[in-house]
Amino acid sequence: MQIAVLLFDRLTALDAVGPYSVLSWLPGAEIVFVGERTGEVRSDTGRLGLHVDAVLDEVTAPDIVIVPGGHGQAALMDDGPVHEWLRAVDRTSTWTASVCTGSLLLAAAGLLTGRRATSHWLALDQLPAFGVTPTLERVVTDGKYVTSAGVSSGIDMALTLAARVADETTAQMIQLGIEYDPRPPYTAGSPETAPPAVVETLRGHRSLVLRGE
Amino acid sequence: MQIAVLLFDRLTALDAVGPYSVLSWLPGAEIVFVGERTGEVRSDTGRLGLHVDAVLDEVTAPDIVIVPGGHGQAALMDDGPVHEWLRAVDRTSTWTASVCTGSLLLAAAGLLTGRRATSHWLALDQLPAFGVTPTLERVVTDGKYVTSAGVSSGIDMALTLAARVADETTAQMIQLGIEYDPRPPYTAGSPETAPPAVVETLRGHRSLVLRGE
Repeated sequence: MQIAVLLFDRLTALDAVGPYSVLSWLPGAEIVFVGERTGEVRSDTGRLGLHVDAVLDEVTAPDIVIVPGGHGQAALMDDGPVHEWLRAVDRTSTWTASVCTGSLLLAAAGLLTGRRATSHWLALDQLPAFGVTPTLERVVTDGKYVTSAGVSSGIDMALTLAARVADETTAQMIQLGIEYDPRPPYTAGSPETAPPAVVETLRGHRSLVLRGE
Repeated sequence: MQIAVLLFDRLTALDAVGPYSVLSWLPGAEIVFVGERTGEVRSDTGRLGLHVDAVLDEVTAPDIVIVPGGHGQAALMDDGPVHEWLRAVDRTSTWTASVCTGSLLLAAAGLLTGRRATSHWLALDQLPAFGVTPTLERVVTDGKYVTSAGVSSGIDMALTLAARVADETTAQMIQLGIEYDPRPPYTAGSPETAPPAVVETLRGHRSLVLRGE
């Protein structure tokens, strides 16, 4: 079972590393980090380098595709090699999944048309332009498409996927292996539960949060 | 404010990337990934390459030190350059923190003697040999030492730290920015809540989980 995780410059590292950390426990999983060029890409802050081990053309039939988001997503919204690759691998994938604004890339490539999907809460309103129904849920499954909310949601998404690909006991073993018993110190993780002033501040810095600008 | 995240071969990527993803939002934070040699280290599965940007000698006075764990931790338990660096930077750090079996490295370097600390639940029993009192809590603060449980706990630890370094509103903004509203599909994230059969299976594979052997 091959799992391809797309990397690109100025991605949000946790979008990719969260699902990787879960799915790499799956029996028989072979994870490959794929991108337009092999070598280093830098995370959205520029402070972390992640390695692309395979170019797009080398990964032609992954069983699972994971698309992260991050500041660099905006630069990949026009049709091009990444969209072509997404459409090509989606033809044979069992699951096509995204974290955060990765769903905008799937949408722009035309893969989510007519479906329900989610994204970072500040980016949900960009989905309808692609014929996608935005859904404020943490993990949204529509057919073989699994999209998840902002950044940290990729861990929940991947555990959900692990249960579908393997079984519930395997997913529980992974959850215990990574000791995923979250205890956030605040209830500020969703625009529905965060203090209104905190929500408004982030809304005011929307383009900084989403695109680093 | 400089935040140094230690990288080493066969680390658990999420141990490092979780705290990085939180702390990089802190106003004025300069994160640096540091290791024995610059260039690539591979994660515990070998499937992900992360970049070391600075060698130990170049990072002499970080304000915060973050030490991840993972399979490669076992190879760093003898005294050597990493222990020397940990002791040196700990002299002036404001906070010295660890995720997962990173606490065993802090303990082996002599920094946790006489203190309470936590680690991956399968590794807690290794702490007393270093004069450390093991504590089955997700995030343990004792003086300036903040240790956290297995893998995913680094996110909770870093949010706790963000509130101490900055303030609660900043921590809440970060939590909302990374949409950390966790919804694990199961309650299997702790040995106290996971199905007993799942706990026993992982206990039986203890050395595989901790050291990849």
